[in-house]
Amino acid sequence: MTAGRRDSGEGKGGAAAPVDVVGTPVSRVDALDKVTGAAKYTGDLIVPGMLYGKVLRSPFPHARIICVDASAAERIPGVRAVLTGRDLADLDPYYGHAVRDRPVVAIDRVRFAGEPVAAVAADDEHTAHAALAAIQVEYQELPAVTDLTMALNDGAPRVHEEALRPGFLHSGEFRREEGNICYHYRIARGDAARAMAAADVVVEGDYTFPAVYQYAMEPHTVVAQWSADGLTVWACCQHPYLVRAELAGIFRLPQSAVRVIVPYVGGGFGSKSYTRMEPLTAALARKAGRPIRIANRVDEAMLTTRRHNMRCWLRTGVARDGRVVARECRIWLDTGAYADNGPRVALAAGDAAPGPYRWQAVAVDAWAVYTHMPPAGSYRAFGATHLQWIGESQIDVLAHRLGIDPVECRRRNLLRPGEEVRPGRKPLEADLAADVSKVAAAVGWGTPKPPLVGRGVSIGVMGAGANPASTAAVRMQADGTLVLLASTTEIGQGARTVLAQIAAQELALPLERIRVAGADTHVTPYDRSTGASRSTTVAGLAVQRAAADVREQLLDIASRVWGLPRVALRLHEGAVWHETESRSYADLIATHFGIAGGELIGRGEVAPGRGDGQAAGPVFWEISCGGAEVELDPSTGRIRVRRLASVADVGKAINPQLVEVQDEGACLQGLGNAFFEEMLFDGGQLINGSLLEYRVPTMADLPDEFHSILVGNGVGPGPYGAMGVGEGALAAVPGAIVNALLDLGLQMRDLPLTPERVWRRLREVE
Amino acid sequence: MTAGRRDSGEGKGGAAAPVDVVGTPVSRVDALDKVTGAAKYTGDLIVPGMLYGKVLRSPFPHARIICVDASAAERIPGVRAVLTGRDLADLDPYYGHAVRDRPVVAIDRVRFAGEPVAAVAADDEHTAHAALAAIQVEYQELPAVTDLTMALNDGAPRVHEEALRPGFLHSGEFRREEGNICYHYRIARGDAARAMAAADVVVEGDYTFPAVYQYAMEPHTVVAQWSADGLTVWACCQHPYLVRAELAGIFRLPQSAVRVIVPYVGGGFGSKSYTRMEPLTAALARKAGRPIRIANRVDEAMLTTRRHNMRCWLRTGVARDGRVVARECRIWLDTGAYADNGPRVALAAGDAAPGPYRWQAVAVDAWAVYTHMPPAGSYRAFGATHLQWIGESQIDVLAHRLGIDPVECRRRNLLRPGEEVRPGRKPLEADLAADVSKVAAAVGWGTPKPPLVGRGVSIGVMGAGANPASTAAVRMQADGTLVLLASTTEIGQGARTVLAQIAAQELALPLERIRVAGADTHVTPYDRSTGASRSTTVAGLAVQRAAADVREQLLDIASRVWGLPRVALRLHEGAVWHETESRSYADLIATHFGIAGGELIGRGEVAPGRGDGQAAGPVFWEISCGGAEVELDPSTGRIRVRRLASVADVGKAINPQLVEVQDEGACLQGLGNAFFEEMLFDGGQLINGSLLEYRVPTMADLPDEFHSILVGNGVGPGPYGAMGVGEGALAAVPGAIVNALLDLGLQMRDLPLTPERVWRRLREVE
Repeated sequence: MTAGRRDSGEGKGGAAAPVDVVGTPVSRVDALDKVTGAAKYTGDLIVPGMLYGKVLRSPFPHARIICVDASAAERIPGVRAVLTGRDLADLDPYYGHAVRDRPVVAIDRVRFAGEPVAAVAADDEHTAHAALAAIQVEYQELPAVTDLTMALNDGAPRVHEEALRPGFLHSGEFRREEGNICYHYRIARGDAARAMAAADVVVEGDYTFPAVYQYAMEPHTVVAQWSADGLTVWACCQHPYLVRAELAGIFRLPQSAVRVIVPYVGGGFGSKSYTRMEPLTAALARKAGRPIRIANRVDEAMLTTRRHNMRCWLRTGVARDGRVVARECRIWLDTGAYADNGPRVALAAGDAAPGPYRWQAVAVDAWAVYTHMPPAGSYRAFGATHLQWIGESQIDVLAHRLGIDPVECRRRNLLRPGEEVRPGRKPLEADLAADVSKVAAAVGWGTPKPPLVGRGVSIGVMGAGANPASTAAVRMQADGTLVLLASTTEIGQGARTVLAQIAAQELALPLERIRVAGADTHVTPYDRSTGASRSTTVAGLAVQRAAADVREQLLDIASRVWGLPRVALRLHEGAVWHETESRSYADLIATHFGIAGGELIGRGEVAPGRGDGQAAGPVFWEISCGGAEVELDPSTGRIRVRRLASVADVGKAINPQLVEVQDEGACLQGLGNAFFEEMLFDGGQLINGSLLEYRVPTMADLPDEFHSILVGNGVGPGPYGAMGVGEGALAAVPGAIVNALLDLGLQMRDLPLTPERVWRRLREVE
Repeated sequence: MTAGRRDSGEGKGGAAAPVDVVGTPVSRVDALDKVTGAAKYTGDLIVPGMLYGKVLRSPFPHARIICVDASAAERIPGVRAVLTGRDLADLDPYYGHAVRDRPVVAIDRVRFAGEPVAAVAADDEHTAHAALAAIQVEYQELPAVTDLTMALNDGAPRVHEEALRPGFLHSGEFRREEGNICYHYRIARGDAARAMAAADVVVEGDYTFPAVYQYAMEPHTVVAQWSADGLTVWACCQHPYLVRAELAGIFRLPQSAVRVIVPYVGGGFGSKSYTRMEPLTAALARKAGRPIRIANRVDEAMLTTRRHNMRCWLRTGVARDGRVVARECRIWLDTGAYADNGPRVALAAGDAAPGPYRWQAVAVDAWAVYTHMPPAGSYRAFGATHLQWIGESQIDVLAHRLGIDPVECRRRNLLRPGEEVRPGRKPLEADLAADVSKVAAAVGWGTPKPPLVGRGVSIGVMGAGANPASTAAVRMQADGTLVLLASTTEIGQGARTVLAQIAAQELALPLERIRVAGADTHVTPYDRSTGASRSTTVAGLAVQRAAADVREQLLDIASRVWGLPRVALRLHEGAVWHETESRSYADLIATHFGIAGGELIGRGEVAPGRGDGQAAGPVFWEISCGGAEVELDPSTGRIRVRRLASVADVGKAINPQLVEVQDEGACLQGLGNAFFEEMLFDGGQLINGSLLEYRVPTMADLPDEFHSILVGNGVGPGPYGAMGVGEGALAAVPGAIVNALLDLGLQMRDLPLTPERVWRRLREVE
């Protein structure tokens, strides 16, 4: 048990005896299902009467739709329905949790190449696909803004002419400006211009970050079915409750008439955040009067959401002694044709710009900008990944100029535990100086280097946990086994295992007596979302409280049965004990209900209204700390990673193995973002929409040495002092690599660091 | 609202303002689903990969199985598996909630004609059916006891040689005697022999009651599917949790690894109580490695369970002034080859024997007797229906002999409110004397009668509610709509509607904002069973408490938000009000969770451990009170019912219309039991296994006048003082009719009162 243990009822009389389930690298509870193929994903489902849907997509980045003629397609045998914008008349057809700007299918106008214009429901996939070609769409092509520069030009065509309607998750007004600005976030602390003028050394530069794709193994897949009772949707989504709320809004239904069921999910990384193919599938099922399945191809998934490409200008000023003085930053994020999560990404990018340092003044402007490009939204460690490598590279440039060791330079400036990160938000928990020293040591900092080998570190903090709003329930059954109900989705991160461990610990119950129900809004209680590293911390806390609630009931019953005060009782291995006497939970439940039946229901919630942090979050500051040692081949521009290290400040690792593999996965994805990944467009058209052309890291790209360093002070806001991880490393890796190249005298200002780009840069530097 | 309202939080500060949902005959919440065909029953389900199962049944009432050769059947194309007793070796293959005596399929021996010997799984029903004929079974026929007389003979063949193993719902030992006695229940109050000797007038007689079938519209249907996680069963069962417990026992699984889902059920009347075709279907699915559906035909359903045929000897003694003195009774119930619910039926029959009178002494023996006949179990108002007409007819015989009006004679002897019904159990709530006067008045008691018209009344009480053990949960969603989770099954009685009304009332919520989830042991909390008139009273109380739990949370939040004490707040139309100001539930939830999300979970339980009555029940005494006016056609023996009346003491009618139609249904079924229904056997073989040969009441059999009189003192143990109904009238009707014939001088001692039987009796009397 950890020092930071909370909410476990200790001192209230009768706590669970430690059974050491928490802190143990137990096997995943879904391991057997997954290795045997018994685990079902959305694409495995067959609903009786189900049809197959295919989507017709716009060939133009911007056009007026003059006419959609589906009559030929509708006459094809096996075609059951064709959905177009005309079928949305009785709906509230625009959705978007931040800005309600995205139509279920295009209405009158298309705004990016790949936008759904119509959808076909047919008896099989082949027929549906064939029918797409039979739909006649007459377009009037319009001038398009297919990059940030075009979109920001004076007099550029407007992507959206209408006033922006806030989505249900957007709090506050849009500070809408002229042109194609979707959202503007600003930080103004102190007088940055004056402070900058007083700095001894100043560095500034322009930087770019490419559009990248989350590349989950399973593309977006949805099955939708209507009944008299409402709408049921099976979807590989990360946020079932947010999807439900949007579907209820679109179809004008009470939320309880919409049921979102999430089977196992084949990875998300943000691509399955918020609402994706669910409205279109539901609208097509409504029109067809039959259940529909739509499964995106990879290229369609890439056109559904992606990470923002970005332009950034950054200036940093420091004093001669290495103390940081001022930072100014301007960020333009290409959010594509629809806002998606652009406003939050702009906010996170803006927050990441200063880095975790003690500035005299900061001025940051971050804009999410509409373009006629595919929409961009969430991707693991959004904002932080965009900005951290830039801010951290300027720290190194300045340290090198001043002749100060980059790690030492950071130690002098890093925020300390308890210091303010963002005005009015919760203070920092982590010991960043210690963390950066750890990764530095892990990559050999200060030891001799072979030629062409460089080392770099990178550190940042990111607001995590989204909002502190989760609920959970546990049901102790008559035989003392437990059904755990939580709406965290199992997206491969091991959430079901970790939540089961928490309940097992609270109830001193062997893990195998716990069954975790899959997320299903009709069944599993509200959870804000699966993302923002929040499941263990926030959903886990709700589960811990729900389990503790049952524990209290068991102790109450045992106390009545024995006529003993609760302090005389303890829980161990599925029984309540008094000295050497015990009664199993099953026995206590049978006694309480008077027959061999009954159950105890425990509920748990995390809510600002009960004192759980600030409504707007963050729940905690996730640290993002990495170190790299790289070797450069100047003849090819190829970079080999010799050592990679990251620190994950997990507070308390509920399952150390799962934490490690998540951290490793984030590092690997960080390598992808740093070295390879980039969605390529030509005039708004995606040109590398498959694994053949879109390069992700392979086993051959792994570093020679990898260190995932778990630290934990047990002071996280989660159960047992846990704190979320799994995103930070992704944001840290590109910066560590860029700084390792700086250590070799090579300053990179554009990602990815492809051999060609590095080779060309080497030629410029020489 | 009623005076007896309880548990509604009144006086605790802030109760729901009455919205008059409770007490209102609102339309059924499932009406639209049912009239449009959207309501899905188990037989409507198609699980991907599902096979169809058919059962091979024994042709002999008693035989040793020498050999089952399924090889020819297995070779038939499309046949996927054949299950026989040999496949049960690794299971605990005997089940039975009272006695674990029934094998999943016959093992070595068959004990009734129609017992499952093997089951075939095939791609379609036709193939499965054809394959049955290809299974070679070699039997050694053995002597059988196919009626009570044969079974009770000295030296009769034993149906079960082995010691009886109590089922998980049987409390206490079997007082097993010699021979074929399955269970013996005895009441011995006072010295009955001595009291009887002192009585002024004594009447005695032998009586019989036939085997009858519950005849639900939907025969037993089950779909079973195995996965790595365990067993899922869709079944039209009344008691999902008891079925789950038995399946877990048979297949040696934790209860949480078995999921029992109950879609809409097409009637039960007891035929779907406890475990039926679920184990066999699950065992066949296990062998086939595929999902299986088995749907009984009507004749197969009749061989699966039925109402006990009975022999009874009864003697009643009274004093000259009409005061009852003593009663002696012996009851033999034919429980068939397996105990099924025989022990409880014997107990209920025994309890019904004395009737609700103030005796000096009572001696009752009731035996459940094994025979080589199809098993008998629950059927609406079991035990009471068997005995009440007999006891009540002796009251009338004695009243006639003493020249006392039968209603007046009852008034002198009926137990009064607060008096003991059964030693140690809860006292009587109802005013029986008032009730019997009401039905008498309704059938014209005391007014002149035309020739050949007779009138009779009948009254009794039956222990109802089974055990006070139910749980429920409600989930208030972010938009203020409610999901209600309870495991009462919707078997046509309107349970979903009544439970929704209770939640609506507690939460001052419009009914249309409530969705009631279907029973599903993975989702909906424990409920002991749907039967014994308990759903409104016991499950309803759990729902009321769960809803009140959410109400308290809403008031807490509102109290914090406004900074006002809770007494200043009230609930009305989905909002909390302070004077003229209001905040909707959705708004309060959003405030509590800090975002447009969250939910409030309420839980409720009914358990003896929290003071809810006695573990062994009954929860309440359901009254069974009817009156009839009949007209006899002596030339044919046909009886026409001119007027029929019943009193349902409902405490407080949550939905008066649903109560009335349930009471009417029970009366109609009472007419069936009185006049027509009888399963006919020849040497243990059922010979009237279809609607063509098994006569149930039709519209033509309805009485000319029908009065369903709802009374209610609001003192029932259920929500708002409600008390269960729906069974009593069935037990009352045969007695009222038999007594109306007695009024014409015709004493009937055997049911049903077919024209032939009445005609023959008329000839004997003349």
